[in-house]
Amino acid sequence: MNTRAANVAVSEPARTIDALITPALLLDRGRLERNIQGLAERARKFGVALRPHMKTAKSIDVARCAFHREPGPITVSTIAEAEYFAGHGFRDITYAVGISPASARRAMELCRRTGADVKLLLDSVGHAAGQAALREATGMTPSVFIELDCDDHRGGLKPDDPKLLEVANRVVEKGANLVGVLAHAGESYALSTPDALVKAAENERSASLRAAETLRAHGHACPIISLGSTPTAHFASNLDGVTELRAGVYMFFDLVQHGVGVCAIDAVAISVLATVIGSKPKKGWVLVDAGWMALSRDRGTANQQIDQGYGVVCDEKGRVLEDVIVAQASQEHGILAIRAGSGKSMPELPLGSRVRILPNHACAMAAQHDFYSVVNGDSPKIEARWERMRGW
Amino acid sequence: MNTRAANVAVSEPARTIDALITPALLLDRGRLERNIQGLAERARKFGVALRPHMKTAKSIDVARCAFHREPGPITVSTIAEAEYFAGHGFRDITYAVGISPASARRAMELCRRTGADVKLLLDSVGHAAGQAALREATGMTPSVFIELDCDDHRGGLKPDDPKLLEVANRVVEKGANLVGVLAHAGESYALSTPDALVKAAENERSASLRAAETLRAHGHACPIISLGSTPTAHFASNLDGVTELRAGVYMFFDLVQHGVGVCAIDAVAISVLATVIGSKPKKGWVLVDAGWMALSRDRGTANQQIDQGYGVVCDEKGRVLEDVIVAQASQEHGILAIRAGSGKSMPELPLGSRVRILPNHACAMAAQHDFYSVVNGDSPKIEARWERMRGW
Repeated sequence: MNTRAANVAVSEPARTIDALITPALLLDRGRLERNIQGLAERARKFGVALRPHMKTAKSIDVARCAFHREPGPITVSTIAEAEYFAGHGFRDITYAVGISPASARRAMELCRRTGADVKLLLDSVGHAAGQAALREATGMTPSVFIELDCDDHRGGLKPDDPKLLEVANRVVEKGANLVGVLAHAGESYALSTPDALVKAAENERSASLRAAETLRAHGHACPIISLGSTPTAHFASNLDGVTELRAGVYMFFDLVQHGVGVCAIDAVAISVLATVIGSKPKKGWVLVDAGWMALSRDRGTANQQIDQGYGVVCDEKGRVLEDVIVAQASQEHGILAIRAGSGKSMPELPLGSRVRILPNHACAMAAQHDFYSVVNGDSPKIEARWERMRGW
Repeated sequence: MNTRAANVAVSEPARTIDALITPALLLDRGRLERNIQGLAERARKFGVALRPHMKTAKSIDVARCAFHREPGPITVSTIAEAEYFAGHGFRDITYAVGISPASARRAMELCRRTGADVKLLLDSVGHAAGQAALREATGMTPSVFIELDCDDHRGGLKPDDPKLLEVANRVVEKGANLVGVLAHAGESYALSTPDALVKAAENERSASLRAAETLRAHGHACPIISLGSTPTAHFASNLDGVTELRAGVYMFFDLVQHGVGVCAIDAVAISVLATVIGSKPKKGWVLVDAGWMALSRDRGTANQQIDQGYGVVCDEKGRVLEDVIVAQASQEHGILAIRAGSGKSMPELPLGSRVRILPNHACAMAAQHDFYSVVNGDSPKIEARWERMRGW
């Protein structure tokens, strides 16, 4: 037992990280603000709007950091996010996942209730045809993006697909409002060199412009050209013709983005605070009370040049412990060990001492927690407790 | 759009699964009850107590299914679980994760407040020495298990480790109450034949008894011999000397347990209901609105004989669609495809139609959701909505 325990009270929020029950999610405000500012400056430089994706942070307090004066344009991945942010005054919302009938209906009800403009995404004639029923059922005119597939990643139409025009025509015919095209260079996450990233960004841009040109040549105004992923948003060298950038994980960054080459490791703004609960000296293991329930099961660095296990381990102040990773994770146990092939030996981590664990994937780690304990740098002070939303 | 949308209201709980916003977690009550009864009967047959691990279900309603008359003995993996279940009347609680100072303190405060007996777990002299401070700080006498390592899985002392006796002596010397030894055959998850599972169960038992004999020979009563994992609990052929079994995932079962050989696929009691939101016919892909946020990132079947991707796909009534799996998952997208090497072709899954996805790992899938929509068999009726707890 150490004296930390004396500070723990069930009913009172902790004032320092020493008093937190572990595992606990920490958010470094300084890093968050620098990350937000970095991409905001890039967008300003290129003269494009930035529409942050709130699926990573899922927090009004984080959103407020991104918008100093008034709620700006945002992206969401669930209707529950749209409802949450609309409830906090956001009005210009892109729901960047192909719509299901029930979610589209709920989105329109949200628009009616709050005056928000929730823009929907679709990529097929069937989807487009459904807009008439949606309009009839809700009395609202849906705003619709056509989803583009620029790199064989997931959904969307290829920019040269003849269906593109057919879908656009059908959207208009069914009384919806075609607001533009939307692309996401999801395959950029698998890259790791600046050249390849610049190319991926240019491909995302040119695919989107090609699609928009086709639509414009046939009388569709297509005012918005929306594209983005955290890697391409940071590596684009030309955004001519693009009207807005979307990115989400850039606010927090993570080890995957570090592996791609998008950020320094000391830009990673969230971590899980964990306590040492045991050791197996013969195996070189130290056990902590953060398993996959706290870290997530994400293994996004497994196929990168450096496999970070379930996360990189830092000391209690956030300084990286070189080559110490979470080698294994069960539900509430993490096993810390030295990375295979490293010449290093395990640092002294006595029972009851604490570490911070950086995420492979910030969206996944944050999703395992209900709130952020906001800190700044190596200070143990908790400046605030910011709630997260979840669910669908 | 289809007519399902007409039933969706934000404020009213859905009465049928048609009216659920997807993705949504379903729990089949019939399967749950059969799974619970199956292991309860085994425990009765062997004359041992069953102490279900509530880390999988995290729900008082599920716990009530396991205990018909009054709250019985349970296992938990976090102090928040202990507090939640104690708040619902459970008193005999084993906290089966090595303690951190802050959590041990909170456990003792819970005992004082509610009269619960929360038993702690430790495996080192340092841990044992901390019991005096814990007792002094809280005025409570901790009940303590010594954790055994029977199969090189994680924490715990080997039954033949000379430290075993040293730890036991120290526990008693520091004024704590040594209640017994606890083992978990975690490596049994990697097995797949009945013979190997029977052997793993016997190894778990004999290791625990060996440790208990050492302790008893030196004057420690060691009344409880607690062991278990879902696989060994179902395959043990001899439990002589054992006083209680622990298991958690058996209530729901999952594809990992199916791969180990513990359950039939139609015993898996939870699934995620998802809606088709697109397709890529040339690639044989169908896109649904359940990604890793709904399914979890767990890939526990990746190293089994049959890799189930991110889950096995069933039709809306829960009938397995042969060889259809979730091949890829991003945050809110799942990509359904035919398993590689299968001769089958993709069944017709039109836009807006629905599927149920079975979990690789029930603990991980359930953790992504705030409640269960309780169904029974292939009926669309939602019998109840059961909340889940989470956090630490």
